[in-house]
Amino acid sequence: MTAPPLFSSELQVINAGVAEFAEALRQQSVPVVDLAWQPPAQGDSTLVEVLKHIYGSRELVEWIEAANQETFRRILDSNPQVIDVAPAAEAMGLSRTILHAGPPISWERMCGPQKRAVLGAIRFEGWAGHDQAAEVLVKNGEVTLSPNHRYGAVGTMTGIISPSMPVLVVRNETFGNDSYATFNEGRGNTLWFGVADEGTLTRLRWLRDEVGPAMKAAIKQHGPLNIFDIVAQGLQMGDECHARSAACTALLVKKLMPSMLEAGVAGQTVADIIRFMDQNNHFFLSFTIAAVKATMDAAHGAPYSTVVTAMSRNGVDFMIRVGGLGQRWLVGPVSAMDEAVYYTGYTVADAAGDIGDSAIIETCGLGGMAIAGAPTIAPFVGGSLADEVAAVRRLETITLGTHDKFRLPPMDSATTPLGLDLRRIVETRLVPFITTGVLHETSSSAGQIGTGVARAPIQIFNQALVALAHQWGLPVNAAVPDESIVDLEPVTKTA
Amino acid sequence: MTAPPLFSSELQVINAGVAEFAEALRQQSVPVVDLAWQPPAQGDSTLVEVLKHIYGSRELVEWIEAANQETFRRILDSNPQVIDVAPAAEAMGLSRTILHAGPPISWERMCGPQKRAVLGAIRFEGWAGHDQAAEVLVKNGEVTLSPNHRYGAVGTMTGIISPSMPVLVVRNETFGNDSYATFNEGRGNTLWFGVADEGTLTRLRWLRDEVGPAMKAAIKQHGPLNIFDIVAQGLQMGDECHARSAACTALLVKKLMPSMLEAGVAGQTVADIIRFMDQNNHFFLSFTIAAVKATMDAAHGAPYSTVVTAMSRNGVDFMIRVGGLGQRWLVGPVSAMDEAVYYTGYTVADAAGDIGDSAIIETCGLGGMAIAGAPTIAPFVGGSLADEVAAVRRLETITLGTHDKFRLPPMDSATTPLGLDLRRIVETRLVPFITTGVLHETSSSAGQIGTGVARAPIQIFNQALVALAHQWGLPVNAAVPDESIVDLEPVTKTA
Repeated sequence: MTAPPLFSSELQVINAGVAEFAEALRQQSVPVVDLAWQPPAQGDSTLVEVLKHIYGSRELVEWIEAANQETFRRILDSNPQVIDVAPAAEAMGLSRTILHAGPPISWERMCGPQKRAVLGAIRFEGWAGHDQAAEVLVKNGEVTLSPNHRYGAVGTMTGIISPSMPVLVVRNETFGNDSYATFNEGRGNTLWFGVADEGTLTRLRWLRDEVGPAMKAAIKQHGPLNIFDIVAQGLQMGDECHARSAACTALLVKKLMPSMLEAGVAGQTVADIIRFMDQNNHFFLSFTIAAVKATMDAAHGAPYSTVVTAMSRNGVDFMIRVGGLGQRWLVGPVSAMDEAVYYTGYTVADAAGDIGDSAIIETCGLGGMAIAGAPTIAPFVGGSLADEVAAVRRLETITLGTHDKFRLPPMDSATTPLGLDLRRIVETRLVPFITTGVLHETSSSAGQIGTGVARAPIQIFNQALVALAHQWGLPVNAAVPDESIVDLEPVTKTA
Repeated sequence: MTAPPLFSSELQVINAGVAEFAEALRQQSVPVVDLAWQPPAQGDSTLVEVLKHIYGSRELVEWIEAANQETFRRILDSNPQVIDVAPAAEAMGLSRTILHAGPPISWERMCGPQKRAVLGAIRFEGWAGHDQAAEVLVKNGEVTLSPNHRYGAVGTMTGIISPSMPVLVVRNETFGNDSYATFNEGRGNTLWFGVADEGTLTRLRWLRDEVGPAMKAAIKQHGPLNIFDIVAQGLQMGDECHARSAACTALLVKKLMPSMLEAGVAGQTVADIIRFMDQNNHFFLSFTIAAVKATMDAAHGAPYSTVVTAMSRNGVDFMIRVGGLGQRWLVGPVSAMDEAVYYTGYTVADAAGDIGDSAIIETCGLGGMAIAGAPTIAPFVGGSLADEVAAVRRLETITLGTHDKFRLPPMDSATTPLGLDLRRIVETRLVPFITTGVLHETSSSAGQIGTGVARAPIQIFNQALVALAHQWGLPVNAAVPDESIVDLEPVTKTA
């Protein structure tokens, strides 16, 4: 009797899953190819059940695919333009309210930098002369706090908007919806970094009294300013448009400043504004987030869509919006900033949690999704361009396609991954990462203390998929806790 | 009797040189590693003799190494800054002379675009009302033609400078020497592209009457403008600073324009200049070539240096300058532009030869030497970033080291190859390539018809090495023809 062929022929093994099996064979000199495989949703039985229900219904899958394609098409068709600059009171109907980045949050739970920025904004508005008085107003409800997203707005880092701050009015020309963002304050003592001293207020007044009106005049003279044209060029010039906007900012200067001069703004004022932009490579970031907000708002809302249309954080909580869930956002704790690169003297122990509405950028094929466009920030993900390229390639496994306008020169002009599919995120456990900064939790003067990437928390995506399953009437054995769902009905403009 | 071990053991072959030997072994299933080897100077006996003489003298090699190190150090230590803007007549003492790119050349041998540009400049100066009259002035010697390099100047493409044109005055602050270049005219009907119609002259008048004085005022207000600071930043933003200067141009706008406004230049003039710069991504190219000229002039002249300190072409002839050869430049025919990418409707048959003083850029670690910094021009060398990286790696085999300020983000911030060593070029037959444009030879309106790379002709490097060997008294059996040597004693400024 001869041995069965398996044992007499030369073994050629592909090992899927547990690595120990491959190791045992290798020790016997058998060549093994490792397949990078893991069970869907890491074997979580609830999630596997949800995924099975979804993929088990051909009809449901077709509805999802159609909704996702509609969402995807709306992103690509969007054409956000700056059409005006005006005080938030006028543009957004804001009164006696301070807007902030991220999910709704009580004053007590708010992180240090955002609290400091809220109090600074109240002083800036003249509603209180000092922080204690300002805090009383908040606690008594005489000043309301609200997330930017309820007002169609977005803010970077602490993301504070108060009524007299000038905002960019961005219109999605294709779909007619508007979005808003303040001007970026730059480095040093600034509200977005959670520093609210006299220098901060002086700069806010200059932004209100000089920059706002000058920009308004420039836009009026120029006509609507196409934001994604500049973003697309910036990607050709080393920006990924979240952590780095140096090229976009320089492009904005040369595109817009002639109109500001022709509108009759005083030469010294224009000189001051150009110099401010020269010293603030993040200046264009406000334009990018507002454009992405106007885009993703237009793309949001297709029933059955599993596309993530926003991510947002306030230093304590992280929330996501999914196309098919309407205005019900999913919320949970932010990630610790333990992957960031800290400035000398600081560690993650000093850091506030992940913060800012700017994570919406990553839902639109920019920021982390475009990180290989910015080799100078390769240290965020390992140090080399190869690491960045690998990161982008991994993101391609959780996206529907790529953005036809956003190209990465160091990847031979590959287009950026676009359309984060909740199903794929839950299935693969790959979460999008966000290129961002880190703020000091307790110091009233340190401001930014690091930079790097933050990971979107996987639990929130899990719950969003379960929430969708419930909405679709799938018989799943899991509940979404009430506190994980936030209703963010938009505020109707009253002005 | 057993077979000798060579034939009984398993053969492992490294094949150096003729490929057929390897092929024969491969056909017998013998594994062969091909060594990319070729005889020095491709076996040219004269050049091999010269190289043997050079490397055979330890003393000579030491002198060469010391001179090259001195040259290299002077390049790195150079700090070129724009210190003024003034008409060429005033800054350079130019009168009744038209300067042009490349080696000296008779009117008869001059290429079409350069001829057209010379006649246009004479009309611009008001010395003649039409081309026929202008040509008479040149033929009679009433207007002198001279290479830019004799006047410490450099010009892109046709490279024309006439007395009333405003020039950048660039000083190498470390070594005290000056260089000059006109403002870049931009696209369309322009002298640098060999088009000299009314539109060209109108723009030249605007550059003379508006841009020159405004830039002079801006520089005076700003103080010396550090050019390599901007170049180093531009390399971080997708420029290689010869074929692409988009980022540097945008950076210049935001760095310099506040000073122009503060100097009291009218808002509309500043608006016009910014808009011109916005529409001309080559605007900064003049700044780069002037800075490189000031650098390489300071680095040139160390006795025994084999470093190439300039390359320059006029569409017919190509010339190079070598550190140890003083003011004796080597000259020979330019390469055909057969590697370029042509605009629709044009071919190499329409093209003037390789042209412009701008090839000096490649002697300073920029342009072709930095091509991997500009993935958008990867089609110049094969289409992918990997092709660009390979090209840069090849250039490292003919250079002394790298430029400490110029980094390539897509190569994980590797510094650019610097210090072209004539010995290595002759030995390896690897010539530097130049990122450049292509002009129409005969059309008076087509201007630029393509873009791509030009190769420096190897014969000129061969002759330069022979000329050095003669100068060093080495007993070599080769002569350098008189017509291959050009004496370019600098003209002393008379103004």
